[in-house]
Amino acid sequence: MARDPALIPFHSRPHAPVPGLRLPPIAATADATLDHTLMLRMAVPGQDALGLGRLQQLALQLARIQNGSPLPFDLLVFDAPQLVVFAGDHGLADEGLSEWPQSVTHEQVVQLLAGKSPANVLARQHGFDLTVVDAGVGTPINQPPPGHHTVTLQSRKIGYGTRNCLFGPAMSLTQAVSAIHAGMDVVRHLPGTVIALGDVGVAGTASASLLLSRLCGVPVVDAFAREDPGATSLDDTLHWQRLDKLQAASQRHGAALSPIHALAAFGGFEIAMQVGAMLQAGSERRIVLVDGFVAGAAALVARGLSPSVADYLVFAQRGAASPHRLMLIHLRAHPLLDLELNLNQGVGALLAWPLLQSAQAVMDASA
Amino acid sequence: MARDPALIPFHSRPHAPVPGLRLPPIAATADATLDHTLMLRMAVPGQDALGLGRLQQLALQLARIQNGSPLPFDLLVFDAPQLVVFAGDHGLADEGLSEWPQSVTHEQVVQLLAGKSPANVLARQHGFDLTVVDAGVGTPINQPPPGHHTVTLQSRKIGYGTRNCLFGPAMSLTQAVSAIHAGMDVVRHLPGTVIALGDVGVAGTASASLLLSRLCGVPVVDAFAREDPGATSLDDTLHWQRLDKLQAASQRHGAALSPIHALAAFGGFEIAMQVGAMLQAGSERRIVLVDGFVAGAAALVARGLSPSVADYLVFAQRGAASPHRLMLIHLRAHPLLDLELNLNQGVGALLAWPLLQSAQAVMDASA
Repeated sequence: MARDPALIPFHSRPHAPVPGLRLPPIAATADATLDHTLMLRMAVPGQDALGLGRLQQLALQLARIQNGSPLPFDLLVFDAPQLVVFAGDHGLADEGLSEWPQSVTHEQVVQLLAGKSPANVLARQHGFDLTVVDAGVGTPINQPPPGHHTVTLQSRKIGYGTRNCLFGPAMSLTQAVSAIHAGMDVVRHLPGTVIALGDVGVAGTASASLLLSRLCGVPVVDAFAREDPGATSLDDTLHWQRLDKLQAASQRHGAALSPIHALAAFGGFEIAMQVGAMLQAGSERRIVLVDGFVAGAAALVARGLSPSVADYLVFAQRGAASPHRLMLIHLRAHPLLDLELNLNQGVGALLAWPLLQSAQAVMDASA
Repeated sequence: MARDPALIPFHSRPHAPVPGLRLPPIAATADATLDHTLMLRMAVPGQDALGLGRLQQLALQLARIQNGSPLPFDLLVFDAPQLVVFAGDHGLADEGLSEWPQSVTHEQVVQLLAGKSPANVLARQHGFDLTVVDAGVGTPINQPPPGHHTVTLQSRKIGYGTRNCLFGPAMSLTQAVSAIHAGMDVVRHLPGTVIALGDVGVAGTASASLLLSRLCGVPVVDAFAREDPGATSLDDTLHWQRLDKLQAASQRHGAALSPIHALAAFGGFEIAMQVGAMLQAGSERRIVLVDGFVAGAAALVARGLSPSVADYLVFAQRGAASPHRLMLIHLRAHPLLDLELNLNQGVGALLAWPLLQSAQAVMDASA
């Protein structure tokens, strides 16, 4: 029996060049000399050299990212941290793949712009500037009235939601390229050395599941989380109906094997823009804090396009659902937090942020 | 075959009263009405009610702790947070149960007093006052010269290290009671609504393993971690020799079944004082941040003496070693971080602290 080509991990497939796609060069950060120097510097006499565990690993990763200048590495610098939340709607929402109607995307964006979401609270707490990017919400998003809060809205709408990928690609290849370029552009014009990425979009999880399945060779049934039966009123039948639809979508786009073709086939706009944001941030040696499952799908695509971007990604958190765990294993990521969050919007990235500050403090104290 | 009495979980054993031990009353915090009110208050329209995952659970626990006043609960209040590091030596160190010689305890205390440990760095970062308590280091500890730093040393020495529990109880019952009372006294005189607890003491892990084994009915072989072969130069033989010694110590004190008798049998002073600190903090409705494996052993003893103390304990982190995972399961604890730390000293508690602040921020924003 021939192996299903969709189950061959994308690493081993040849990629055709994509017309119009301009990717910035990204340098790998591996530097064994730096690692060694810093391990010696951070060692405390009479204490276990690995006592700080993954905090030390985090400090090393951050130092490798910021080691790009011609000067020898000295201290970690965290300037003007930015949270960027990309919002987009999904044609798949029509298929009842989320417990929420599509209008909730709009509602959540309005809440973010009004400063009322947990992400706003945490951004204020940790001194992050918050930019909400309308990557493709299904309705017009209005600029909020100028007020006391400091949320910026950027309108980069590629379309009014993606198309339903059961009947055709979620977006055209041109749209996918435009969205990636838009995400690059957003990051290019933001200041600071740290970019946290989050997203809003009903049924974004379904797109992320299809990307996980396609790009990592994971069966759809393992890539799509059953929503928490305690939190919702889902029954088994509904879950299996949803899986049938995702399975059909996956089969319909069985030829979309490369990262960019899979992205175009399954969506969404907010994922594509996060891909661009990651690539641009990596090319500028900025630290990228990646939040949840949907952001992780963007990381899969970005890594497929430019493998060394992975060096710049700090994975903030692992959700409760097994597909997220599976995705992080494929990303070879050990996220910092394991708090069963289910919000996306960058909340996990902001919760993890103090650990980066602690890594900085411990490293700086050893200088 | 009769079941080994040491393997019967201590919950089901009758406890004889201990002469001289005065335990403060601790109120359980469970309050379903409060939980319900706060869940409604924190719910964001159009978002998953459980989206904040364990951050919400944490917020509820903290609110239940601070709900003791006659006024209805309003906001979480974190005043003057305190880190208390208890230091003590263990007779078991003579048996080569740690890779470090006993003198390292002294060395680590001196580093803490000089403000040079990661715990100092993080305490400064997060605005914690640091108190180092000499619970029973094997050598005299001198007051540090008055300087620029703000570490306080409290001398509460119960003895110059515990005795080797292979040949007799690590401490007398009177010493155990004195140490618990001293820990209570330390907390009674500290300000603030949050107490983070850490510890220093070579071979403290061995005592903690024996307590885990005895108080939870876990075989010694599963309660004692093999030190990381990457970090040290341990070989299998050494590990099995250590296990033999712990097994012998456990058998020698097969009659020490109650929490306080097990504590006296296996030590150590820094564990006993943490027990007292937890009980006192619980009786004053303070939040207790529990750090690592040794602090967890103190939590086992404290819970055995006064079950409702568990409501006040926030478990900061889970180490890499499987006995710590086992211990946390027995404590029914879901620690906040999973960073493979191996330091104790309160470092994990300080790293987890910003999550409490975030829980506070999210709850306050909903008020």
